[in-house]
Formats: sequence, structure tokens, C-alpha cells
Amino acid sequence: MKKSIKLGLVGYGTVGQGVAKILRKNKSYIEHKIGASVEIAGVCDLRKPRLDSGYCCADYKQLIADPEIDIIVELIGGYEPARSLILEALNAGKNVITANKAVLAKYWDEIFKTASKNQRLVYFEASVGGGIPVVQALNEGLAANQIQKISGILNGTTNYILTEMTKQKIDFKSALAKAQKAGFAEANPTFDIEGIDTAHKLAILCSLAWSRWVKLDDISISGISKVTAEDINFAKDEFGYVMKLLGSAKLSKQGLEVSVEPCLISGSHPFANVEQEYNAVLIRGDAVGDVMFYGKGAGQLPAASAVVSDIIDLAKQVAVDTAGKLPYVKYGFSKRIKIVPQEQSYGCFYLRFSAIDKPGVLSTVSGILSRCGVSIASVYQKEPLSGSRRGASIVMLTHRIKYGGLLRALRQIDALPVIKSKTVKFRIKD
Amino acid sequence: MKKSIKLGLVGYGTVGQGVAKILRKNKSYIEHKIGASVEIAGVCDLRKPRLDSGYCCADYKQLIADPEIDIIVELIGGYEPARSLILEALNAGKNVITANKAVLAKYWDEIFKTASKNQRLVYFEASVGGGIPVVQALNEGLAANQIQKISGILNGTTNYILTEMTKQKIDFKSALAKAQKAGFAEANPTFDIEGIDTAHKLAILCSLAWSRWVKLDDISISGISKVTAEDINFAKDEFGYVMKLLGSAKLSKQGLEVSVEPCLISGSHPFANVEQEYNAVLIRGDAVGDVMFYGKGAGQLPAASAVVSDIIDLAKQVAVDTAGKLPYVKYGFSKRIKIVPQEQSYGCFYLRFSAIDKPGVLSTVSGILSRCGVSIASVYQKEPLSGSRRGASIVMLTHRIKYGGLLRALRQIDALPVIKSKTVKFRIKD
Repeated sequence: MKKSIKLGLVGYGTVGQGVAKILRKNKSYIEHKIGASVEIAGVCDLRKPRLDSGYCCADYKQLIADPEIDIIVELIGGYEPARSLILEALNAGKNVITANKAVLAKYWDEIFKTASKNQRLVYFEASVGGGIPVVQALNEGLAANQIQKISGILNGTTNYILTEMTKQKIDFKSALAKAQKAGFAEANPTFDIEGIDTAHKLAILCSLAWSRWVKLDDISISGISKVTAEDINFAKDEFGYVMKLLGSAKLSKQGLEVSVEPCLISGSHPFANVEQEYNAVLIRGDAVGDVMFYGKGAGQLPAASAVVSDIIDLAKQVAVDTAGKLPYVKYGFSKRIKIVPQEQSYGCFYLRFSAIDKPGVLSTVSGILSRCGVSIASVYQKEPLSGSRRGASIVMLTHRIKYGGLLRALRQIDALPVIKSKTVKFRIKD
Repeated sequence: MKKSIKLGLVGYGTVGQGVAKILRKNKSYIEHKIGASVEIAGVCDLRKPRLDSGYCCADYKQLIADPEIDIIVELIGGYEPARSLILEALNAGKNVITANKAVLAKYWDEIFKTASKNQRLVYFEASVGGGIPVVQALNEGLAANQIQKISGILNGTTNYILTEMTKQKIDFKSALAKAQKAGFAEANPTFDIEGIDTAHKLAILCSLAWSRWVKLDDISISGISKVTAEDINFAKDEFGYVMKLLGSAKLSKQGLEVSVEPCLISGSHPFANVEQEYNAVLIRGDAVGDVMFYGKGAGQLPAASAVVSDIIDLAKQVAVDTAGKLPYVKYGFSKRIKIVPQEQSYGCFYLRFSAIDKPGVLSTVSGILSRCGVSIASVYQKEPLSGSRRGASIVMLTHRIKYGGLLRALRQIDALPVIKSKTVKFRIKD
């Protein structure tokens, strides 16, 4: 039985400092759980932070070379040098904890192969859903189930922006500025607002759920930068829909449908009241039915809560020398899952056409839709047609249709001289 | 590496058959996760059920004595012989999985001492929240946190009954009969409707959260059998409150406040839309903030999902011979947690007085309340006083007050000749 477990932290920013804070504050309590003490032995950070304990270095290789250190905690984010340091740590016999969704999504196969080869563990609870223990739930607590569906609000920044656009009726740019001011969006928010961050997290959840590596390239991704307050409010006021950026995956006989896109959900959907920086994940298993998890998806202490829970779990195993006897992630390395191209998926859609106000537009548009198999459930005129020289917005809700047919129809419609700008479309999720 | 893990199932009723069904249906998938095969080697059930595999016996001791069997799965429920068989199994070197909240709540200390002594594991995910993996979340996923608060809708039967009373505006008896017809309530529903089942589950969550045994006797328990449709509807129509049977625990400097009681919550509370047989648990940790879990709390497959997830987790450890090297539940056996007597707790309340319609009643009642430190936020007259010989219902909402003061006041008020029946009170939770 090892009496003291030593950590090497790479990156001592917000989350790293949160980890140190929790380890300090809940020390006796955590050590009781582990049955051993746990200590930050060294930190790699160029900013040379002040530390309670341990040394500071500028090269992560020094931590990996330190024979005292049992667990490397990677908190720098991004693809490199995160990937190299995780692989080097595993090859040097260290166990690894990471909060880095990007590196996991991109190098899942390489990382878990290396972990498996070295009989070491990679824990990553903080990579998805902040403090919500959804990684463990999917990997262990719901392990009996064939997972049928995963759906999630996985990015706090975009959820904050969409909440502000809805509640304050402000446009995307103003909401983004507000999010940046409130500390919920970074100076360069591209990964968040374009849905890449959500896709990273979704790739991790899918790879866990189906024991196959689901790559970023497998996911159809669209972000929220083109969502207008106009559509959000019209969909809300007319139909009671709420706009959310959803990461969704559904397994059927055809394969896995997996996408990130802004969607409309009904006001009674369990996600409808998940607002601001909160995250939620809904998982459907063949035995358990629907299970939902909800909590803060971002922030220093929620993320650090997940990292420290991983530390406790790993430290317990290191203490009794069982770490790595079982892989944490078990999957079929060589097998791939069949991905259903988005064109072949089915769904209901909200469409808004910007048309020049001329007689016959509606009949032309609906003729094209009909020929492409897009059947319309209802039609709404947003602005008065008659006597107006301005264009008209026509909103349609479709029945359940094939997405490929819709795309084909919209290509034709958007090429019509009477159509002023690209038709807006949002998937409606139930 | 063990190639085949053998199970002994005690009890082959609804959940036991569900376990067999999942093990059969998801066989290849589950065995991939474990890295070994898993098989029901024997079943103890007096009904002599037909089995896919293994033998059937009438005495659980036969399963415990079987050297082939690695894991005993206890699915008979109740205190005895469940307690004896769990202890005997552990003493015989078996690992145990149980779905039995009653035996865990009552014999927590004895069971986990015995597990610890024998270096064997007791897993019990199905004992709380059906298929929702809340036991593991609390025990591991949120392990970094000092838990500050737990609140839950933990009993599907009572939640079904309260939902029906609210939606159909029917009385308790009719709703209970409907629940029994729908298979959501047992012929003898006492444990469910009187809050005992909720208390069992709450005791388990508290014992896990605070690493101390919280006993059934520590919990102030009241059920829903005296809740009237009148109060449910008045509270809903006037104030937008929803009635839920909540198990709640809160840690403060004074100690642990822990109770099961029907409570009123606001319509925007995350539990407000948790209806029918669904369960939800909200956990507040010092680092993570509020995390909520939601799913089906009862039913064959949700419960079996939790049991089989435990089987997978345990079987993996049995396969590589690490099971029991670490205790699953780590707690300070000798230490007790200080329980705050309910009288010393604070809260807001809904009160309904049944008074004879006489002048001066309101002033007498409010005088007593005031002298006992019960400060009133608002008063509502339910039926017209004037010109009526019938009694009047007076509803009051209190400010945050000390519960002991309220009890003192109600003892005096209920003894008044002008008061026709016991005053109704419900805690309002935020």
C-alpha cells in the first residue's frame, strides 16, 4: 500500500488552480476516501506560479522523468503539445488525467492504444460536461445498455449566447460580446460558436457509448454564428420552440447519425429550461430508457471537481497497485462504426424563405419542395405581402422528411430570382 | 485472467428476469466490456423458474457454498433473510450485488464492516433511483466535493400518485387505486406511501455522501396518505406550487438536517416537471454546484440495467483479481454525524386552518403564531366567511421560521374550540 500519491500538473491556469484549491480545502476528506495522501509534486507552467507544494518547471518532460510522480494531469488544452505529453507520460509508465476534449477527440485511437499497450489509465471526466459525471455514467453506470441515442447541450458559451438572444431579444454579435464580458466566451470564440467544441465532446461520448472511435470528420457540424434573433423569437412566439445548439447521435440499423447543429425543441423538452452556461446530456439506453444529467458545464470549480474526482479514483488504484490492470476505456480498436450521411437522415424542419413579394412565389416554392419529397405541415407569412414593396418572409414547418431531399429543394429554391437570400433551416428535435 | 464469471441470483422475480434478459440480449457487447464471459450459474427461487442456464435451488446457502460462483446477486428485498444471506456470502468470500434499499439502510454498518473484513465488495446501484447511476456518481464521480445538500424524488409510486392527484384532480384513494391498477403500487403500499421507501434510499445517499452511517431513525419521515387534492390544487392554482414527496438532506455547521415529507416546490424548480414514475436527484457539492440526475426510478429493465452495470463493473475486477483490494464504500465506521432535530430546522410553510366561521378566529390564530415566532407572509381565505354556516379554510404562507415554533403554535391552535380539524402544513422548498 502506497502512502502518498504524487501528481504532476501540466498547466496551472484556471482549472489547475481550481484543482489545487479543492485538494487543499477538502484535504482530510479526500485522503480519507483514498486511504493515502495526495500531493502536487510538480507543476509545469511558463508563468512560474506560486505553489503550496512541489517544484515548478518549464518543460513537461521534467515531470514525466520524475520517478516520484504517479499521475500526470494535463490541463493545457489544444492538440499539441498535449498529445505528445500524454503519449510520453503513458510510455513512461505514468497514469494520465486530462480535461482536454480536443486532443481526445482527435487522437482517441492513438491515446487509448498507447494506454492499453502500457497498461496505464487515461481518465477524462472533465472533458465533457464540466463537473457532471457523465463520462463515468456512460462508461460504467449505464454499461449494461446498448446506447440508442445521445443528445446534449455540451457547450456553455453557445448556450449562454442563445439564452441571451432569446431572453433579451438581442442579436448574435451583442450576445457574444456580452458573453465575452461575462467571461463565458473567449477572445477567439470560433471553436465554441462554430460547434467544434460541442463536436469534440460528442465524439468522446459516442466513442465511449459505442466502443468505436467516432471521429470529428464523422460529425456534420454547424454552429450558431448565423442564427438570428428573428428566427429565435418567431419560433418561440409562434410555436413555443426554444433554440439550442445540440450535439446528437442516434444509432439505427443504417448506422450512426451524428451531428452538431442549432435545433428547435419544444418548450416541454427536458432541455428547454437548461439555460446560460448550464449543460445537459440525455442518454437513451435499451434497458434504462431515458436518463438525463444536468449541471454547470464550465467554470473553474466544476471542471476542477471532475479532475479531482478522477484523481481520487486513480490515486486509490495507484495506492493498491491495481491501476491499469483493467482498461478504463474498452473498445474495438480496429472496428469502425458505420456513419449515416446526413443527407440520408430524416427529420422535421423549420424553414424561412426570403422572397420578393410577387404573386406565385409560394406556389413555385411549394412545387419544388413537393417534387423533392418535402411535405409541408404548415405555412406562416411573417410580414404582410399585400401592398408592400419589401420582401416577405415565409416560414414553413415540414413533416418528417429526408434531409437530402430538402437540400436538393433548397438548392433549386435559393437559385430562383424571386428568392432574396439563402433560405434559413433548423431541425426540430423532439 | 479469469475467462468466465459466474453469478448466483437469489430471487428470480421481475428484476431477476430482467437481469437475465439483458445478459442474454446484450451478451456479446457485455462480454466485450468485461473481457470475459458472464453467466448465471445458479438461481435460488421457490417458484422453480425456467432458466436459460444454470441450476435452480430452494436454499440460498447452496449458491453461497458453490465454489464456482463469484458474485451473489440478492434480489429478494426486505430485511431478512436478505441480511443473513449478504453477510454469509461476504464471509464465504463472495462479492455481492443488491438492489435492496431496506436491508442496506437498516444494516449499512454491519454489511460494510463485513465486506471490509473479508475484502469483498457490495455494489448496490439499483437500490436508489432505478437505472439512474446516482450511487456511483455520488460515490465516485463527485468524490472531490464536500456534499452540501441532497434532494430527491426517490419513489416512483408516490410520484405517480401525486401526479395523478394533480393532473386529474382526484383524491388520494382513487389515485392509489389507479397506481395499483397500472402496476406502479403494490397491494400493500405502506412502505411507499408512508415515505419509508424514500427514507431507505435517502439513508443510503446520505451514508455515501457523508461517509457516515445515517440511520432510518435519524430521518424525520412523513408520507402522502393524508395529502388532499384540495391542498394540491389550491397551492397550484393560487401560487403555482407543485406537490412532491421529497427526501432532503442538508449539511450545516449545526449538523445534518434530514427528512422525508411532502413538500411544495415552485413551478420553475427542476423537479416540477418530474412526473409519474420518474425519479430525480439533485446534489449540491462545494465545487461542482448543483448537479441533477433524472430517469425512470422503477420498472423491470431500469432496475435490471443498474444491476447488470454493477455485474459488469464487478466482473471486470473479479476477472483480473482486483475485486476487494479497494473498498467500494469507504466510511468512518465508528463516527456518527450529528443530526439536527427537525424542531430546530428552519423553513417556509404552507398552512391551512379549518376554522369555525366566527369573528376573531383570524386574530386568535395569528396572535398565537406571532407569539411562537411564526411570521406570516400572506393570508388567503379559501371559502367565503360571510353568510356561511360552514367552516372556513384559511391558508397562510409563512416567512422563513423555526419549525419548533410552528409545532408549538399548532399544538395551541389545534386545541382551540374554533378549530375543527388538525391544521394542514407543508414545507415549501426552493
